[in-house]
Amino acid sequence: MKNLLVVFLGLYLLSCSAKSDQMVEVKQDPLPSWNEGVNKSAILNFVKSATDSSSESFVEIKNRIAVFDNDGTLWSEQPMYFQLAFALDQIKKLAPEHPEWNETEPFKSVLAGDMASVMKQGEGAIIKIVLATHGDVTADDFETGVKEWMAVARHPRFDRPYTDLVFQPMLEVLEYLRANDFKTFIVSGGGIGFMRPVTNELYGIPAEQVMGSMMKVEYDKENKIINRYPELSFIDDKAGKPVGIYNFIGKKPIAAFGNSDGDLQMLEWTSTNPNSFMMYVHHTDEEREWAYDSLSHIGKLKEGLTVANELGWTVADMKKDWKVVYPFELKD
Amino acid sequence: MKNLLVVFLGLYLLSCSAKSDQMVEVKQDPLPSWNEGVNKSAILNFVKSATDSSSESFVEIKNRIAVFDNDGTLWSEQPMYFQLAFALDQIKKLAPEHPEWNETEPFKSVLAGDMASVMKQGEGAIIKIVLATHGDVTADDFETGVKEWMAVARHPRFDRPYTDLVFQPMLEVLEYLRANDFKTFIVSGGGIGFMRPVTNELYGIPAEQVMGSMMKVEYDKENKIINRYPELSFIDDKAGKPVGIYNFIGKKPIAAFGNSDGDLQMLEWTSTNPNSFMMYVHHTDEEREWAYDSLSHIGKLKEGLTVANELGWTVADMKKDWKVVYPFELKD
Repeated sequence: MKNLLVVFLGLYLLSCSAKSDQMVEVKQDPLPSWNEGVNKSAILNFVKSATDSSSESFVEIKNRIAVFDNDGTLWSEQPMYFQLAFALDQIKKLAPEHPEWNETEPFKSVLAGDMASVMKQGEGAIIKIVLATHGDVTADDFETGVKEWMAVARHPRFDRPYTDLVFQPMLEVLEYLRANDFKTFIVSGGGIGFMRPVTNELYGIPAEQVMGSMMKVEYDKENKIINRYPELSFIDDKAGKPVGIYNFIGKKPIAAFGNSDGDLQMLEWTSTNPNSFMMYVHHTDEEREWAYDSLSHIGKLKEGLTVANELGWTVADMKKDWKVVYPFELKD
Repeated sequence: MKNLLVVFLGLYLLSCSAKSDQMVEVKQDPLPSWNEGVNKSAILNFVKSATDSSSESFVEIKNRIAVFDNDGTLWSEQPMYFQLAFALDQIKKLAPEHPEWNETEPFKSVLAGDMASVMKQGEGAIIKIVLATHGDVTADDFETGVKEWMAVARHPRFDRPYTDLVFQPMLEVLEYLRANDFKTFIVSGGGIGFMRPVTNELYGIPAEQVMGSMMKVEYDKENKIINRYPELSFIDDKAGKPVGIYNFIGKKPIAAFGNSDGDLQMLEWTSTNPNSFMMYVHHTDEEREWAYDSLSHIGKLKEGLTVANELGWTVADMKKDWKVVYPFELKD
């Protein structure tokens, strides 16, 4: 009888301990790659107050919308936008189908490997390269092309896949927000069709939460496929970002993250929401990543920095705030 | 000692029973407003096979995308699109700010309550009414206007709020899909800004999962607001629906629900996904709702019905398949 009692007591305690295990909150640091300081605290405090139902700044779950620029905010963008590296490689890949490119600029220079000449031809040349490689293709074939490139292309400085160059501290911010019932979106000037094949794997952001610049597409009723055409239909940059968010999401975000003047309107619009959080990633680390801002052609950050400082937005200093930049630093 | 044993035994059994309660699957009918038959079975079988990991037709959660037309598929659309009823009421509300409308058609006829004359003026008149009431307004004021109208306007036939006229059997389909990890989207020819203020409450579909036809919008940097302009920027109907889905979601759905020829391309595109499910709601019930198809100006269903029958898509017969049409029938 006594043994039986012990058995039941044991079973009961076991069942209680199983329950209490579930109830113990594990208080881990949600942002382990961030050094302690005002910027890390600002992120933590924002999330705490938005999710504290007793706080005046509490935000209902359905309105916990956070938007992120991609190039320079979630992954690197130097020495050129990764999408441009893709477009240049595509020119080489598609050249056999386009003999006329051997005689036409800027394609001729691309095929000759003369990037200096391409750059001299200015923005118009870049647009021609993007349109030629992102249009005149079915949606399915374009997606396949992006996936194939992502799997084999390597970044010239790091000799690693481009997809290795995502920012570990920002991955932690994404995870932390989602763990607190935020919905995370990408709002990028980059092409929507270039990002969507990889955002779920890279950032945990599904295709339907990615917006970006768009090419004209049409539905071919006969073949029941989507075709892409070499014509820009929407530029998701500067004042286009609030427009894109209004059209895609239909809600004003309560948190916005960017790194350039192209993100300023998105951050400013977000800032009109009470208790919102705005953050710039400032590229200050030429050792581990790159250092650039007001004088850079890529990711120029000048007016945005002035506004951020005036209004007290968070400006993450990559060199000071980030313990590691890339996930591979943790593994190597 | 014996009493103690009984106490522990009781506690243990209690804890077991609490656990086993959680583990007992409650096998309730997920579609109680659907009569038994081939159509109900088709829905159930599709969901079972898409979610059965041992099945060849298993679909990963991230690809469980279901798209729904709104007018005539999730709520009624007779005797006119509810959005048109809203636009007509807005003309009356906004008239004091527009004295010129007293002398200009089609506004003059609307203000005189002469709908016969408005209808005689054709589609161009309707478009003028929609543009005048959906453009030239800030996004915030437009949203407020929609919410105010939804709260007070009443449907002429039922003398109930328009929001009462959602289809109970379709609410059950939405719930059932979501319970099986589908993400549900609205893809409507109706205006995106007209639907978003109410879809979460009506259907459990958040604003960011609603797409529809769009007006031109711009971001006003000075005032940090979104303004709407009287110009259509995207028509989310017919071949526009696959285009809208590609741009907004970036994935081809595996389930699509519509009620008119305007939904045909969306259903056809979806049907190119293996093991996909396509359904038309056929309006066959003039007693409880309305009966119309190939001869109707609103929600015309002719070519779609032919294709559906040829390809064996599900055609829900409102009269035969639905035990109730509207949720209020359950309460009254």
